[in-house]
Amino acid sequence: MVEKLLGVLGGMGPLASAQFMVRLTLLTPAEQDQEHIPTVLWSDPRVPPRTAARLAGGADPLPAMLRGIRGLEAAGCGAIAIPCNTAHGWYGSMRDATSLPILHIVDAAAADLARQGVAPGRIGLMGTAATLAMRLYQNKLEGAGWDCLVPDEAEMRRLVTPAIDLVKANRVAEAYPPLAEVARGLAARGARAVVLGCTEIPLGLAAGPALPFPIIDTIDALARTSIAWALD
Amino acid sequence: MVEKLLGVLGGMGPLASAQFMVRLTLLTPAEQDQEHIPTVLWSDPRVPPRTAARLAGGADPLPAMLRGIRGLEAAGCGAIAIPCNTAHGWYGSMRDATSLPILHIVDAAAADLARQGVAPGRIGLMGTAATLAMRLYQNKLEGAGWDCLVPDEAEMRRLVTPAIDLVKANRVAEAYPPLAEVARGLAARGARAVVLGCTEIPLGLAAGPALPFPIIDTIDALARTSIAWALD
Repeated sequence: MVEKLLGVLGGMGPLASAQFMVRLTLLTPAEQDQEHIPTVLWSDPRVPPRTAARLAGGADPLPAMLRGIRGLEAAGCGAIAIPCNTAHGWYGSMRDATSLPILHIVDAAAADLARQGVAPGRIGLMGTAATLAMRLYQNKLEGAGWDCLVPDEAEMRRLVTPAIDLVKANRVAEAYPPLAEVARGLAARGARAVVLGCTEIPLGLAAGPALPFPIIDTIDALARTSIAWALD
Repeated sequence: MVEKLLGVLGGMGPLASAQFMVRLTLLTPAEQDQEHIPTVLWSDPRVPPRTAARLAGGADPLPAMLRGIRGLEAAGCGAIAIPCNTAHGWYGSMRDATSLPILHIVDAAAADLARQGVAPGRIGLMGTAATLAMRLYQNKLEGAGWDCLVPDEAEMRRLVTPAIDLVKANRVAEAYPPLAEVARGLAARGARAVVLGCTEIPLGLAAGPALPFPIIDTIDALARTSIAWALD
């Protein structure tokens, strides 16, 4: 029986955190309910949009995220996972506001690059405009030898950003073609793997045929890191 | 923006409550994160098995379920949904222990039978041995004119019970053939619809071709009832 209680600060977006719960369950080695990981998911989709806050002067999401962290602390959680990449732009502020460890999604992605045997060199990186602009991935991964190739501004505006919004509006299948086009473009420009650095992106890409190169799904990566924490 | 906070007492099993979160999200009319339903999922798979408690003198699950209800109350939830049919065998004890409304999964199933236009008469009912023995569905549905045809004891032992256990062990695809065989058998014996009165059953049946008769998926039914509560 797993006695550690995982906290999930979710709702950013809600489908991504629901799918995180599905993948957390399916990736756990368990023969019966009682071997699965006790988890509290705080799914608060009212958190102000993270990209607008960072790039366009929108409302600050930090107070709502800290309310969620207070809720997870009160529930007795021992660590926190946040299945939203852009929210990690406030990682330092959240870390400073709680004594609980927060499992960093970029560390989880780096561990998954290693797990999949992706050698140092050029990789593709998709994410929200804010995640790319904050260099959340580039700063951590380039130190480890992975060079991040990102979509250009026109691809972001025409394909990636609208596709992320389609997933949040439950129009998941429509998000596949634009996301697959961008991922294929990165691979064609020399990326030997593509990191899906926004948790809406793997939801859209699951709606169509698998892509023929290694994909780092940050929902799965964070689930694996969470399972390792819980079973340690 | 939805201001009501839904509480989900889950983990029974964990994949069913994760899938409940997915369906709750996909069935909500929403164009952006902020129009989705704020939810706290208390996923505690350590709750002692409900069927063993009811039929074989196993440990009482009620204390663990009440701990979850206390957690959802403390989080500020306004109502509770429990995506586990067998747990509703303790519905009265839970209702008496909280001031929050608990959305009853059998009422949700009855509403879905009506929504799908299933006329009074013979319907099929699948569930755990405890759910069938407690007559959770029969007592409520037969008063409304739906006669419940259930699998026989050999089908339960050979097909339904092992299939539910396969889902809890993450062996979801293997659960399809036995569950589909039983559902088809009920239809062949005159059931004009089949109620999946255990939230593991729709997970297994989603792993293969759709069945050619109306299905009442109690994950979806409870999600619809929860959305109606939240948006009311």
